[in-house]
Amino acid sequence: MIILGLDPGSARTGYGIIEKRRGSQLECIAYGCITTPQSKSNPARLLYLEKELMAVLKRYRPDVAAVESLFFFKNLKTAMPVSEARGVILLTLERRKIPIYECSPLQVKMAITGYGRAEKKQVQLMVKKILSLPEIPKPDDAADGLGMAIACSLAQRPA
Amino acid sequence: MIILGLDPGSARTGYGIIEKRRGSQLECIAYGCITTPQSKSNPARLLYLEKELMAVLKRYRPDVAAVESLFFFKNLKTAMPVSEARGVILLTLERRKIPIYECSPLQVKMAITGYGRAEKKQVQLMVKKILSLPEIPKPDDAADGLGMAIACSLAQRPA
Repeated sequence: MIILGLDPGSARTGYGIIEKRRGSQLECIAYGCITTPQSKSNPARLLYLEKELMAVLKRYRPDVAAVESLFFFKNLKTAMPVSEARGVILLTLERRKIPIYECSPLQVKMAITGYGRAEKKQVQLMVKKILSLPEIPKPDDAADGLGMAIACSLAQRPA
Repeated sequence: MIILGLDPGSARTGYGIIEKRRGSQLECIAYGCITTPQSKSNPARLLYLEKELMAVLKRYRPDVAAVESLFFFKNLKTAMPVSEARGVILLTLERRKIPIYECSPLQVKMAITGYGRAEKKQVQLMVKKILSLPEIPKPDDAADGLGMAIACSLAQRPA
């Protein structure tokens, strides 16, 4: 089973793709970050995000996708563009009939470290360890995408 | 010039289509509300919204679209789904290369009534008057869509 994890953002959307094998072993397939050009308008950036996400979906053909859900936000000015990007991501996944698993940052931390208030660094170290990576994935958004995918894999039945 | 005004929402998106003639005369072409089925999941509702909006765009072929922008929100739980719907709307307009004019509720009130703190009812009465309609358009979301279109028409050069 191929699992795509997504950490939405209007400027940067991190993604991670893992494969869950029999025996629940997890392997990292790819990770990266869709960075939308700052020079473009907000709608043009959303269109750019959709195109890049489509390319990721075509290349890796995930069976399921995990998307970060937002519950709390310090800054409403941040929450709105992130939610717009999230809307575009959910639409794109739904159009390709990919089952969507929504997961809060708290759930990701709980799933990966067993502790809901874990530090970002601690989550990243566990992502590295669980996927047997040589180093912590960069940028942070990509590591968060892999974290989402791992959390999703624990909520899915074995392939 | 055909102008589409949109009042985004995840449950209901109001729209209004007006034509701006020479001499800046405004005529109401159509108005309505895209209501997404409550029984569907959030991503399925976004896909439904996109399809219905595409049908409106194909039918009325607007030259420009005005979309309500959000600046303040009493309730963050409302702001997030509205922003997701807004993301889908901006994406759909951008894909069809329709110029987008973003307009705050304050700007709409100022443009239509000359008073930024006008009551909703007062704005609706002016929409009725400006477009020479027999009655106030229903539902409220549709009237808001027409209000957006009128505010946009005042910011555009004459056709």
